[in-house]
Amino acid sequence: MFNIAILGMGVVGGGVYEVIKNNASAISHKLGGNGEPLINVAHVLDLRSFEGHDLEKVVTKDFDKIVNDPTVSVVVETMGGAQPAFDFSLKALESGKSVVTSNKEVVAKYGDVLLEAAKKNNVCYLYEASVGGGIPVIAPLINCLTANKVTKIAGILNGTTNYILTKMLYEGAAFEDVLKDAQAKGYAEKDPTADVEGFDALRKICILAGIAFGKHIPTEAAALRRGITGIDSADIAAAAKAGYAVKLLGVAEQVGDKASIMVAPHLVKQGTQIASTVDVFNAVSVTGNMVDELVFYGRGAGSLPTASAVVSDIIQAIRCPVAETPRKCCEEGFVLPLEETPVKLYVRTASAVSAELGTVIDLENGEKAVITEKAPYGELKKKLAGIEIKAEHFVL
Amino acid sequence: MFNIAILGMGVVGGGVYEVIKNNASAISHKLGGNGEPLINVAHVLDLRSFEGHDLEKVVTKDFDKIVNDPTVSVVVETMGGAQPAFDFSLKALESGKSVVTSNKEVVAKYGDVLLEAAKKNNVCYLYEASVGGGIPVIAPLINCLTANKVTKIAGILNGTTNYILTKMLYEGAAFEDVLKDAQAKGYAEKDPTADVEGFDALRKICILAGIAFGKHIPTEAAALRRGITGIDSADIAAAAKAGYAVKLLGVAEQVGDKASIMVAPHLVKQGTQIASTVDVFNAVSVTGNMVDELVFYGRGAGSLPTASAVVSDIIQAIRCPVAETPRKCCEEGFVLPLEETPVKLYVRTASAVSAELGTVIDLENGEKAVITEKAPYGELKKKLAGIEIKAEHFVL
Repeated sequence: MFNIAILGMGVVGGGVYEVIKNNASAISHKLGGNGEPLINVAHVLDLRSFEGHDLEKVVTKDFDKIVNDPTVSVVVETMGGAQPAFDFSLKALESGKSVVTSNKEVVAKYGDVLLEAAKKNNVCYLYEASVGGGIPVIAPLINCLTANKVTKIAGILNGTTNYILTKMLYEGAAFEDVLKDAQAKGYAEKDPTADVEGFDALRKICILAGIAFGKHIPTEAAALRRGITGIDSADIAAAAKAGYAVKLLGVAEQVGDKASIMVAPHLVKQGTQIASTVDVFNAVSVTGNMVDELVFYGRGAGSLPTASAVVSDIIQAIRCPVAETPRKCCEEGFVLPLEETPVKLYVRTASAVSAELGTVIDLENGEKAVITEKAPYGELKKKLAGIEIKAEHFVL
Repeated sequence: MFNIAILGMGVVGGGVYEVIKNNASAISHKLGGNGEPLINVAHVLDLRSFEGHDLEKVVTKDFDKIVNDPTVSVVVETMGGAQPAFDFSLKALESGKSVVTSNKEVVAKYGDVLLEAAKKNNVCYLYEASVGGGIPVIAPLINCLTANKVTKIAGILNGTTNYILTKMLYEGAAFEDVLKDAQAKGYAEKDPTADVEGFDALRKICILAGIAFGKHIPTEAAALRRGITGIDSADIAAAAKAGYAVKLLGVAEQVGDKASIMVAPHLVKQGTQIASTVDVFNAVSVTGNMVDELVFYGRGAGSLPTASAVVSDIIQAIRCPVAETPRKCCEEGFVLPLEETPVKLYVRTASAVSAELGTVIDLENGEKAVITEKAPYGELKKKLAGIEIKAEHFVL
């Protein structure tokens, strides 16, 4: 019997318990058993009391009870928020317990410290569920790296904004109206800032870039974090006319011995895996120098999909608790500033435009779209200085 | 230093050596080293002599030399063909060496025996590269199962046929002409039977279904193996008009406590991940009861992509040689015959059709397409008995 603790039995933590209960038999076989339940939730840390719940008797507000229980081998951190989740994670690792999390804030902010602590204590810190919910992307990315240098990652990492952009396309509606609809349906929070301003996607692309480039990337280092509030439905229509979908992407790319990292709306060619990813689904494209492009697609959020990824990690932590190679924080200047980041731009203008600027597409009402070649952002802005820019977006 | 042996240094085996050499530093760190090469190819089994090659001195025709070398911990089987690859794999496992393979013939035919031998000898039999080339699909599927029951798998599993179907769509060309072009470009073999008749895709869907349903599925058990030689360009055009792409799919689905397994051309809704997968790329859709739909996309073949997957497995075999749960061969009747397999059908006809049969779409020259609801194949055929069927395909 393997004892685990769940810190925070909310949407994800509750789902983890459901999955462990419903799939007890398959989990048992995976752990060498014969179908009898082999994972026992020995403690639940939560401020609520969960009266009537199966786990009511093991709910506690006392973290020390968990840290001091030598029979607990895996701590599941599904609390949300940076603190006290970080403190608890660190203490758990230092007491020789593996930690499995879905908490992208903690991983993005403190991943370097926690991976180091895991290595030092011969346990593991696993965070598959922190990016892309139920989609296996962290483990394949880490494994991919044994045989590849990863040169580029581009992903739809936030389901809320992808749902909004999909509706804006299908209905030609304005952002504010679609946001209200999303909130009514529970796809967007009352305070949607983290999603619509790109903070959530930024944490996730920095986590992925950290793995790909072997250095911890603080979110503040990114060249740009731009959300979807500035997207005009006129540009969604123009992009569609030109053969593109508009998606909020996290993008990380190797540029010589440096990296470019950003979150921003991008035009993505119709017919590609990324462009075909609609509604709340996520997709992550990874390009490796041996394997070329891989794309992982699925539900990036939701109780059971995310719990599914957490439980896979729990089993991994029990069967093979080998620590991932820790990463140091990247040095100053490793991540290029926006001016030096090589990009392709889409601009919408009513000005006269020459074909020197890029591919020119006629739009309604006399306006034109220009799609440039790939060059450092600063250079492109200089080239475009002569025209009146009504809207500007990146092109994948 | 970890000693490995490579059986068969052809397209994939040679790629494995290239990847080990080019990525020696990353591989070293993954194995706990500091960048110094930690994988040594101690033996290469091949009938050729490889004069001038780095590994010339370790080439041998004598398999016993390898089996009797106690320093070899992992045997890489990249020979192709069922024998003697199966015999060698079994002997290697029985001598306490893990085996890593890309050989779908061996895995499809003998997977149950080899997984049992691995378990018995406390080593592992890994075969990521046998399905989907460089795309991580086996490992994610196995891990997915810890938290999910997998209810459906549908995949474009063969790059040759997908290349041909893509060209038939883009150019409105006939199968025979596109096949010649594919052969000229090296995307199809001189004898293209294994690809175009669906044998390759069948092996792969049976391997995936075996993992998903926990029983070894012999290829002969499948309900149907139909390739692409019977696809009329008129149906590719009709499907496109109706909003579908035509793809050769392997499909495995849970049906109560049985399974349906087949390879056949399918109409796939445009805009989906599968329909957007073109040219030589592969894509595998996996549906789990907790995680919902996941799709894995990438290059399904090619020396370096496939070698990339083999090397990931080599590292896994070294770091964590835990055997997968073996599977017994499925019982008679576990896989439904075609008559009982629930499917949706597309038929093209010049006959009069009533809306009772399904969704009716008007085509050129007075013909119609009918897309039925999902029902057992035998029932649908009875319903359609009154009309003249010019073409019939499945619909995903």
